Amino acid sequence: MLTSTNWQDLVARKRQECQDKLPREWKLGEEVLKAVPEHLLQYDLPRRSGLLTEEELDITENYTATQLLAKLALGQITSLSVTTAFSKRAAIAQQVVSCLTETCFPEALDRARYLDEYLQKEGKPMGPLHGLPISIKESFNIKGLQTTLGYVSCLSRPPSTTESALVTLLLDLGAVLYVKTNVPQTLMTADSENNVFGRTLNPHNTSLTAGGSSGGEGALVAFRGSILGVGTDIAGSIRIPSLCCGIYGFKPTTNRVPFGGQFSGEMEGVPNLVPCAGPLGHSLADLKRFMATVVGSDSAWRYDATAVAVPWKQGIEVGSTRNGSLNIGVLAEDSHFPLHPPVRRALERAVDALAKAGHRIIKLDNGSNHDLSLSYASRLAFQYFTYAPHPDLITPSGEPVVKSLANLSSPMFTGPLPVEPEKEPYTKINDLHMAREKYAESWRREWVDKNLDVILAPGAQSTAVAHDTYAWPSYTVIWNLLDYPACIIPYGKVSRELDGEEMKTGDNVQPDYHPEQVDGAPCAIQVITPRFHDEQCLAAAELIEQAIRE
Amino acid sequence: MLTSTNWQDLVARKRQECQDKLPREWKLGEEVLKAVPEHLLQYDLPRRSGLLTEEELDITENYTATQLLAKLALGQITSLSVTTAFSKRAAIAQQVVSCLTETCFPEALDRARYLDEYLQKEGKPMGPLHGLPISIKESFNIKGLQTTLGYVSCLSRPPSTTESALVTLLLDLGAVLYVKTNVPQTLMTADSENNVFGRTLNPHNTSLTAGGSSGGEGALVAFRGSILGVGTDIAGSIRIPSLCCGIYGFKPTTNRVPFGGQFSGEMEGVPNLVPCAGPLGHSLADLKRFMATVVGSDSAWRYDATAVAVPWKQGIEVGSTRNGSLNIGVLAEDSHFPLHPPVRRALERAVDALAKAGHRIIKLDNGSNHDLSLSYASRLAFQYFTYAPHPDLITPSGEPVVKSLANLSSPMFTGPLPVEPEKEPYTKINDLHMAREKYAESWRREWVDKNLDVILAPGAQSTAVAHDTYAWPSYTVIWNLLDYPACIIPYGKVSRELDGEEMKTGDNVQPDYHPEQVDGAPCAIQVITPRFHDEQCLAAAELIEQAIRE
Repeated sequence: MLTSTNWQDLVARKRQECQDKLPREWKLGEEVLKAVPEHLLQYDLPRRSGLLTEEELDITENYTATQLLAKLALGQITSLSVTTAFSKRAAIAQQVVSCLTETCFPEALDRARYLDEYLQKEGKPMGPLHGLPISIKESFNIKGLQTTLGYVSCLSRPPSTTESALVTLLLDLGAVLYVKTNVPQTLMTADSENNVFGRTLNPHNTSLTAGGSSGGEGALVAFRGSILGVGTDIAGSIRIPSLCCGIYGFKPTTNRVPFGGQFSGEMEGVPNLVPCAGPLGHSLADLKRFMATVVGSDSAWRYDATAVAVPWKQGIEVGSTRNGSLNIGVLAEDSHFPLHPPVRRALERAVDALAKAGHRIIKLDNGSNHDLSLSYASRLAFQYFTYAPHPDLITPSGEPVVKSLANLSSPMFTGPLPVEPEKEPYTKINDLHMAREKYAESWRREWVDKNLDVILAPGAQSTAVAHDTYAWPSYTVIWNLLDYPACIIPYGKVSRELDGEEMKTGDNVQPDYHPEQVDGAPCAIQVITPRFHDEQCLAAAELIEQAIRE
Repeated sequence: MLTSTNWQDLVARKRQECQDKLPREWKLGEEVLKAVPEHLLQYDLPRRSGLLTEEELDITENYTATQLLAKLALGQITSLSVTTAFSKRAAIAQQVVSCLTETCFPEALDRARYLDEYLQKEGKPMGPLHGLPISIKESFNIKGLQTTLGYVSCLSRPPSTTESALVTLLLDLGAVLYVKTNVPQTLMTADSENNVFGRTLNPHNTSLTAGGSSGGEGALVAFRGSILGVGTDIAGSIRIPSLCCGIYGFKPTTNRVPFGGQFSGEMEGVPNLVPCAGPLGHSLADLKRFMATVVGSDSAWRYDATAVAVPWKQGIEVGSTRNGSLNIGVLAEDSHFPLHPPVRRALERAVDALAKAGHRIIKLDNGSNHDLSLSYASRLAFQYFTYAPHPDLITPSGEPVVKSLANLSSPMFTGPLPVEPEKEPYTKINDLHMAREKYAESWRREWVDKNLDVILAPGAQSTAVAHDTYAWPSYTVIWNLLDYPACIIPYGKVSRELDGEEMKTGDNVQPDYHPEQVDGAPCAIQVITPRFHDEQCLAAAELIEQAIRE
C-alpha cells in the first residue's frame, strides 16, 4: 500500500514532477543516454544530441558572460535566444549529470521575452545583468519554486513565497533565473548527493565527484549549461566544485554578496564559520563582473541587512609599488594533508612561471607546530562545525543518511581539539572565539611582516576523486576560518605520464592517488588575500593567470 | 592591622601612586580647590590657577586638533609646548573632576621632544598625527601603564607589556599619549565611578554626571585637558559622555577603528552587542580627521585582525541627488522614554532649522507596537547584555558595588524579554540572533522605502542628570544593536526659562526633569546613518550643523 509517509514514494513523486517540467522536446532518447561515456565533456553531447541549433551551440560555447552581456545590452542578441540556449543545455546536463533541483524554464523564457521587449521599447537595458540567464544554488529561495535542500522531510514545504535577497537583487539587475542546482544532504559534504535529487556527476568524468556543496553549479557550469552560477561556501563549497569541474570560482569575504533569506536547515545564529555567496564561471573577468555588479557602489545593503555596505572598488592595483610584480606567499604542503602528484605539479608549475615572470616567491611556514598551522585551522573549523547541536531534518522522514555524510572525513587524526570540549556552552563559545582570533592574529602578522600581496595555494589535496572519497577540505576551510577571499583558477589536467605512480596516503581518511582513475581530470590553483581584499584577490588572480598562461 | 588583602588599603596605595605621578608644580593649592564652584567651566579654573602660561592657555583653548596638527607639521609650534599645555590642563582637570586613571607625563614629554627633533632633522612630520597629544580610555593597554578598569582585584596586575592595536597605530601615526581616562565599574553604567579612581564629575556642573562609560574622556575633553580623545561604545559609552559634557562624539560602525588588545574583563567571544572605539572632540572636522587618519586607506587591518579592511572614503557627498538637501528621518519620541523638555526643545529647534534650510523632514514611526520600536530594541539589547554569565571581578577583592551599578536602570518596564529566557544556551543564542536580524531588516526596509539619507534623533531622554540617576540609554543603544554609526552634536543649553516646569516621569526608573538642577547643562542632537556609512554620517552631520548653527 502506498502512503504519503513512505519516503521513497514522496521522492518518486517529486522526481516525476521534476521530470514533467523538462520540455519533452529537450529530452534525450534512451539510446542516446545509453551511449554516453564517462568522459562526457570530451564526447560533446550537446552537439551530438542534435537538440541545440548551431546558434545555440555558438551562444553557449563561444562567449564569456561579459561578452554576452555586451551583446544583450546592445540588442545584438536577444535574451530569449540566450535563455533558450542555456535552458536547453541545462536540461541536457540534468539528464546526464543530475545537476539541477528545481527548474522554471517557461517562466524564464517569459521573462526573457519581457526583457527583450523592454530593451526595444526603452532603448536601454533593464540593468547591468540585462537578459543573462544565471543559475543559482538550491538553498536560495525563488518565489514559486520549492526549497527543500534535497531533504525528504522538506518535500511537504509549499513553493516559496519569499525571495532570497540576492535573488531580488539579481532580478532587479536584469538577470534571468532558470534553474536551481543540486547540493549534498546537509550541505556539509563534498559529494552533491541527496535522496531527493540524486547524485551530481562530474561531466569531465562521471565516475568522479563534481564536488560540493555547490556541486550542481560546478557540473552545470562545466557543461556550459550555465555561463555564470551562484554558489555558497562555508568550508570550500564554491571552490571544491570549481576545482573538481575545471572552472573558476570565487569565495568572497562574508556578507559582501547578500546572503540573507536562504534556507540552510541550521541554527544560523549559533557562532560558527559564516557561509558566503559567490560566483562560479568560465573566466576571471566574469567573476569580477559578477562581484562588481552585485556588490556595486551602494546596493548590497539595500537588499539585505546582513550585507555590508562596502562598495566594490574599481581599478584596484596590486603589487604596483613594485612595478606590477607581486609578493606571492606560497602555502606549504601540510604533511598531514599530502598533495596528490598532479596537484603538486600544478602548483610547482605555477610557482615556476610566476618566478619567471618576475614575481617574488616567498615560502610560508604553516607546518603542524607553527602558529599558522593548516592542521590546526582544520581542527578549529571542525570543532566549530560540531560543537553545537544541529537540527535533524533527515531522521523524521525515514530517509537514510547518504554515504558521503555517513563517512564524513575529519581532521582529528592530526591532533587534539583546540578547545576543551567538556566545558559549558558559554565558555566553549568564548574559547573557540579566542582561539580563532589568536589564529587570525598570527596570519595578520605574517601578512604584514612578509609584506605579502597574495597567497598561492593548492585548492585541495587532490583533484576530483571517486564518489564519496573526497578528503577533509583542509586547503579551503582555512580561508573560511580566516574569512579571507579565495579564488580557484583551473590550471592544467592530471597526466598519467607526468604525474607518476599511484600514491597511497596510508590512512583510511584521505583518498589515494590513482593515476588511471583521474587521468585527464582538471587541476587548479588557489589565490588568497586578506579579509575585505576581494578586489585585490581578483586583481592578483588576473596577474597570476597572465603569468601562468604564457 | 594593615594587610594587602584589605581593599581600602590597596586603593589608598594606588591613589597615592597616582598622586605622586602628578608633578608637584602642577598641583592646585588647598585654598584654590576649596574655592572651586559647581559650574567649573564657567569659572575658568585653568586661567585662575595661574599654572598655565598665556601661550598654554592659547594652545588649549583657541584651536581645533586639525589646526594644531597643521601647525605641528609645519614646525610652527612644537609638540613639547602642545603636550606640556594639555598635560598641565589635564592635571588640573584631574584634581577637580577625577577624569584620569593612569598618567605618563614624563614619557609623553620625552616623546614630544623626540618628535620635535625628528621634524627638525627629517624636515617632515613622523605621520599625520605628528606631535598631537591624544587621551585614551582606561580600557586600552599602553606599555608600562597598568590597566585595571578601576577594579580593586586588578590592582595586582603588573604594568602592561602589551599594547592595544589602536595604541600602536596612533603612535605610528605620530601621536603622543599622555593620559588614560576614567570609567565606571564594569563599564556598564553611565556614571564613571569606581572604587579605585573615584567618580568623574561633569565640568559644566560638578553635581551632574559626566556620563559613561567613557566619562573620563567626556570630562577631560570638555575641560580642554584634551583636544581629541578616544572612547569606546557598546550602548552609548562615547555618546553619553559627549552629550553630558557638551562635546562632539562619534560611534563608528564596529571594527572600523581597531579595537583589539583592550582589557574588558568580559567573555568577549560570547555573542553580544559589539563595542567599538571612536573619537570624542571639539568639532566635526576633528572627528573626521581622526577617522580618516586611523582608518586610512589600508591601515586598520594591518594592526588588528578584528579590524575590517574598509578604507575611509574621501569626499563623500550625501543628498547630492537633491542638490545637497537631505532626506532626514526624525526618530519619534518613545512614550516609554519621554524626553525632558530641553532635549525636546533642542530636537525641535534643529528640525525647524533644517526644514528652513531646505532639507526634507520625514517623521518616523518607531512606537511600541511597531517593527521599529525603540523600546523593543532596548529590551533586546538588555537581554543580550544579561543572558550569559559575566566574570565577577568585583567580589574577590571585597570592594563594594558602586551605586550606579547597584541601581542599574533597565528597560524591562516597557514589555517582555524578546526571547524566552528559560531556553538552553544554543537555542537562546540563536533566537537572539534571529530577533536582532529581523529587527535590522525592518530598519533596512524603512531606510530604503523612505529613501533616507540620515536619521536625526535625541541622544538621550535627558541631559546630564544628578549622579547615579541616568536612565536606561534607549536612544543610544538602539544604534549599537543595529551597528549604525551615530554622531553627537552639542546643541544649546538647558534653560530654566525656556524649558518650563519640572517634569516627572512618574516611575522610579527614569530621572525627572529638575529645571534648577540642570539649568545651563549642554543639550545635543544625534545623527545616524546605516552600517558602514560612517563617512556619510559625518558628512551629513556637517550639513546639519551648517543648517542649525545659522
